[in-house]
Amino acid sequence: MRKNVKADPANGKDGHGKEEKIFAEAVRVFRQKGYHAASMQNIADAVGLQKGSLYHYISSKEELLFKIFERSTGALTQQLEAIIISQDSPTDKLRHAIEAHLVALCEQLDIYTVYLSERRALSGRHHAKVRAEGERHARLLEQIIQQGITSKDFRAVDTKMTAHAILGMCNWLYQWYSPDGRLTPQQIAEIFSDLTIDGLARGRK
Amino acid sequence: MRKNVKADPANGKDGHGKEEKIFAEAVRVFRQKGYHAASMQNIADAVGLQKGSLYHYISSKEELLFKIFERSTGALTQQLEAIIISQDSPTDKLRHAIEAHLVALCEQLDIYTVYLSERRALSGRHHAKVRAEGERHARLLEQIIQQGITSKDFRAVDTKMTAHAILGMCNWLYQWYSPDGRLTPQQIAEIFSDLTIDGLARGRK
Repeated sequence: MRKNVKADPANGKDGHGKEEKIFAEAVRVFRQKGYHAASMQNIADAVGLQKGSLYHYISSKEELLFKIFERSTGALTQQLEAIIISQDSPTDKLRHAIEAHLVALCEQLDIYTVYLSERRALSGRHHAKVRAEGERHARLLEQIIQQGITSKDFRAVDTKMTAHAILGMCNWLYQWYSPDGRLTPQQIAEIFSDLTIDGLARGRK
Repeated sequence: MRKNVKADPANGKDGHGKEEKIFAEAVRVFRQKGYHAASMQNIADAVGLQKGSLYHYISSKEELLFKIFERSTGALTQQLEAIIISQDSPTDKLRHAIEAHLVALCEQLDIYTVYLSERRALSGRHHAKVRAEGERHARLLEQIIQQGITSKDFRAVDTKMTAHAILGMCNWLYQWYSPDGRLTPQQIAEIFSDLTIDGLARGRK
């Protein structure tokens, strides 16, 4: 797909920077217009490229959407994997997982907004890969909750439903979070962690 | 907008039933194709009407989307208002509010899926009204949480953030709930309520 990049005199060694710009502008266009209404022409205009030149970098609108998702969610999953294998207590792991999720979402609000509202627009192989990534995130949360049940820090809850609850609480931020709001992502994460961890703590029921 | 309904021989006293059918088919078409990709022609085809006849009932695709939202979210808000003024304890009120929310969402999954994924597609007055309805729901939850803080059943949490957390947890069901799943909406509501109410309970921190 990138085989023509070097042949384009407008790029040369700038090919990678241009690709970054295409991703950034595509996210903005998708968020503003919605994925379906946005066209490759809109994205080419935003980047300042001819539509034909845009196709040197990316083969379709859907591939662009998929690559945007892959980059942002992949990095968060890696963070969660590192948290799981750390020596922290399950309680601290859950705190770190919620904070990593909220910080990633708030720092890349445009990307997550497109991801959370448009991911069903993908088809076939792309859809399956994005879905698998979402499920991997859920499984990692379930593992942390299970570790807490095993260590008797948490009560014996339904790990799957509890992971859904935490994911929903966190993902929903894309609907209401504003960088100009009164709380930082870290402060919101602390409130959500307190609610969840006290809700999971043993001894109350 | 409905002034021509009686002039259409295909309707007569059946006008109301036909309108119900239009709402139901529009929800299905919006969910399947996405709001932007769906056309009035698609909806007319699904109902079995000429496109011209469809305009006897509804003036635009956006008005149709707005009316669908108004009906479903309005009914849930009324339920929450009844819960707030009941004689139940704040703990029970919160349980009932979460259950009402999840049951409404699961029973009208198509409508809520379109509502939660497409409501930003509305413009102007419609957008403002739908946004206000969403905020009313959040305020009602905050009121219940505040009642629990006042009665010392709950700790002195940030009511706004806690309402966001509960709303996110509940709304997120549209992304993963399946009527064929192993739990009923009531059972899911119980798990979510336990998590939230124990998380809010005084005395742990």
